[in-house]
Amino acid sequence: MSDGPPRGPAGRPSIRARRLGIDTHAEAIVFLHQESDICRSEGLAGHNRVRVHTDGRSLVATLFQVTDDLIANDEAGLSDVAWTHLGLHEGDEISISHAAPIDSLGLVRGRIYGRELHAKDFDEIIRDIVDGQYSTLDIGAFLTACASRPLLQQEVLALTRSMVDVGERLVWSRSPIVDKHSVGGLPGNRTTPIVVAIVAALGLTMPKTSSRAITSPSGTADTMETLAPIDLSTREIHRVVERENACIVWGGAVRLSPADDILIRVERALDLDTEGQMIASVLSKKIAAGATHLVLDVPVGPTAKVRTPEAAASMTSGLTAVGTFFGIQSRVVISDGRQPVGRGIGPALEAKDVLAVLQGRPGAPRDLRDRALQLAAALVELAGIAPAGNGITLAKAVLDDGRAWRKFERICEAQGGMRVPAVAPHKHPLLAERSGRLTAIDNRRISRLAKLAGAPEDKAAGVELHVQLGADVEAGQILCTVHAESQGELDYALAYAGTNMTMFVLEER
Amino acid sequence: MSDGPPRGPAGRPSIRARRLGIDTHAEAIVFLHQESDICRSEGLAGHNRVRVHTDGRSLVATLFQVTDDLIANDEAGLSDVAWTHLGLHEGDEISISHAAPIDSLGLVRGRIYGRELHAKDFDEIIRDIVDGQYSTLDIGAFLTACASRPLLQQEVLALTRSMVDVGERLVWSRSPIVDKHSVGGLPGNRTTPIVVAIVAALGLTMPKTSSRAITSPSGTADTMETLAPIDLSTREIHRVVERENACIVWGGAVRLSPADDILIRVERALDLDTEGQMIASVLSKKIAAGATHLVLDVPVGPTAKVRTPEAAASMTSGLTAVGTFFGIQSRVVISDGRQPVGRGIGPALEAKDVLAVLQGRPGAPRDLRDRALQLAAALVELAGIAPAGNGITLAKAVLDDGRAWRKFERICEAQGGMRVPAVAPHKHPLLAERSGRLTAIDNRRISRLAKLAGAPEDKAAGVELHVQLGADVEAGQILCTVHAESQGELDYALAYAGTNMTMFVLEER
Repeated sequence: MSDGPPRGPAGRPSIRARRLGIDTHAEAIVFLHQESDICRSEGLAGHNRVRVHTDGRSLVATLFQVTDDLIANDEAGLSDVAWTHLGLHEGDEISISHAAPIDSLGLVRGRIYGRELHAKDFDEIIRDIVDGQYSTLDIGAFLTACASRPLLQQEVLALTRSMVDVGERLVWSRSPIVDKHSVGGLPGNRTTPIVVAIVAALGLTMPKTSSRAITSPSGTADTMETLAPIDLSTREIHRVVERENACIVWGGAVRLSPADDILIRVERALDLDTEGQMIASVLSKKIAAGATHLVLDVPVGPTAKVRTPEAAASMTSGLTAVGTFFGIQSRVVISDGRQPVGRGIGPALEAKDVLAVLQGRPGAPRDLRDRALQLAAALVELAGIAPAGNGITLAKAVLDDGRAWRKFERICEAQGGMRVPAVAPHKHPLLAERSGRLTAIDNRRISRLAKLAGAPEDKAAGVELHVQLGADVEAGQILCTVHAESQGELDYALAYAGTNMTMFVLEER
Repeated sequence: MSDGPPRGPAGRPSIRARRLGIDTHAEAIVFLHQESDICRSEGLAGHNRVRVHTDGRSLVATLFQVTDDLIANDEAGLSDVAWTHLGLHEGDEISISHAAPIDSLGLVRGRIYGRELHAKDFDEIIRDIVDGQYSTLDIGAFLTACASRPLLQQEVLALTRSMVDVGERLVWSRSPIVDKHSVGGLPGNRTTPIVVAIVAALGLTMPKTSSRAITSPSGTADTMETLAPIDLSTREIHRVVERENACIVWGGAVRLSPADDILIRVERALDLDTEGQMIASVLSKKIAAGATHLVLDVPVGPTAKVRTPEAAASMTSGLTAVGTFFGIQSRVVISDGRQPVGRGIGPALEAKDVLAVLQGRPGAPRDLRDRALQLAAALVELAGIAPAGNGITLAKAVLDDGRAWRKFERICEAQGGMRVPAVAPHKHPLLAERSGRLTAIDNRRISRLAKLAGAPEDKAAGVELHVQLGADVEAGQILCTVHAESQGELDYALAYAGTNMTMFVLEER
């Protein structure tokens, strides 16, 4: 036995782990006292990347050195994500060493300097990202490199496969398995719950896994969460789908494409969205979810994510080609992306619109209904249960006679019980500063407004629109209402609105 | 008076600031309890970017939410960099709000998507970076975008000017002001202290501000710091130069191009080095330092920073063109970059080589001496105190008769007193595994080895080379010795060496 300092995992000097209860999101951070034995013996300096070892696991973390008495010399403080990733318990012994150079970061640098990445390169990069080897800064550089020099089609294929390979896959005994995806960028475009209800009512199997928002005020998962639990295990998903042919759950909970969940957080922080990354993101999730037939909703408009018909065509050919390669039959539905869909923008406000359409309420937003019907029709035709041109009739029938609504209720019950969306305690209307015809709405600025009000973290926050393109507006008329869960956020959103009222373009009649 | 929570700067709800003593390097972080009034009233969520206000200053920080008792509900913990930037004192009241969207990040995204940046764009971006508005992730995206789609010449010009504009400038009553810079990438290439001593002994004015290492095991500032204080104020620099015509100080301490110091840290973390960024980095420092004549040392070799004569030509034309635009006469000296220079690699080991050359010791590294003489000769000719071809005679004379050494001693004394470089307590030789002629040395892997041993943070750490290209080596002969300040780092470097012995290429004779 040695007389040296205590030895921990793999014979290295060990130190007691302490959960600091700090939410640093995806960034693993370890806090060590500057004077600790481990910093001295290992020669660790602030902001080094270090490897933290337990008996069975390890991860790379950023070292923050502490000079004060915030932590003791004989303890290592860990951020929540590091604690969870390592499966630690209070007082566990861990060891900490320099992080070995991460070879795959050389591949990322190569990509920055213009070298193409190959299948095994993406395998290495994606495995390292999922294993917690990359800092947020490293991930940001990878994403920026893939945005600055757009990914080639073979790179998108390879990236998609790598992302599927590191995650779980859902396996179904039925066929076909239908799915839909919207490329987003259009606030309020919350057709998914309606489409799932319609096609499931028609007997199709649609185990829908959705994402949370990337850069938008709400993702389908965010909206659906206001109506039912969405954080289901693989086993629970199978049970729900067995019973109702369908579900609408959060994909992240089942580790379908876990790389995507990590990449999305950094994309969100950087407000980046690129075609190649998006195709890999969408398809890795769909492949892992076991889809065989996929309908893609691509809204096109000057302030949507896809701005021109040319960009839509490029997106379409990219998505369908990569989809075909992985055995997924897909159809793209190009839609009008010139203005938000429905009335609400933000998780709960969008849920309200979804319920109105499903329940056939008189004031239900027509545009949301029409879009959902069109996408459901495309799915039933693609899956072969209706001849071309007849899908719309079937879809309308089950929506109008209440079967879709009853199916939706049963799906929510099967997922753990239906919920009532929250209502925001703070509201404020934005008024037209002049009279005129509404000729344009800036989706991006409307989205930012909703985000500043607190969406999607605050479920009830967002923007409620009272006008649509073509409307004749009088000065002083309410254009929209901002909803917020705190006065601070409301003030903040209103300050932004005050200097951005050109998000509504009013032209003289 | 209101009955609400206490009000702080600008009438916002206030909270007591607490210095946590956490070194997060350049990343400003604020720690708030999840249940704190300020999180609730302002609707702040984890990983939000928030603005921290004092009475007179503000900065943007990343919010880490704390769920444990690490900090109290009524206090805001700040990382050291945030504390210093805001000039806080214990118990000061601060307020915290959402950070308004940073407009210039839209310009960064535009650059990622392929739009050129103009002068006012760079002004905005650089000002925001220096004002602490950008996260490390944001800065990384900016640098990656400028590496993926290399900066155009007009962009390099604009970036350089923006970087100069946000910092201090040194103003000299004398002329010419000479300067030199090496583009780096060549371990041990520590000519600067020798060149400064020679040209100052010849009567030229050379107020040299140097950088710390970016991605290398030592920068001139790191090496010089083992010989004398380098952290001088503008006033102290003027005093030293007044007395000795020269100095060798750290540029960061005088806020010459503070943007460069921030960018360099992130470049270092990402291990990124690109031509446009490098030109702006070098020239912004030289312009701010008031240089009129500049000699650039560009080592070229397969594992140097500049790998081909074509890349050197591109670098040369870029640097001289941008230099001319700002009124700096420059000359480029292309040198052999196939192997490290001198014997030592790492701050103190390089200082030892510098001293040997200046003191004219018998075993002084010949290659370091020759390079320093060549650069000094170029400078005296460029500055017009020797006709073309005669500079080398003048330079040799003052080096050989001891005037340069005495000048160097006086400069060190003027800067605060000469120091003796530290010696590492842990050493280990690396032996040749076979006999053969040494035909190549991998600069990058030698550098990595020195860094893994602890350089440049550990001054005494690094690599001492015992062989040069062309040497006939016997199996078992010592190729180099690794120096480290801790056993952990030594082990770590040796583990790397064990799998990277091909950094020395031995070919059969």
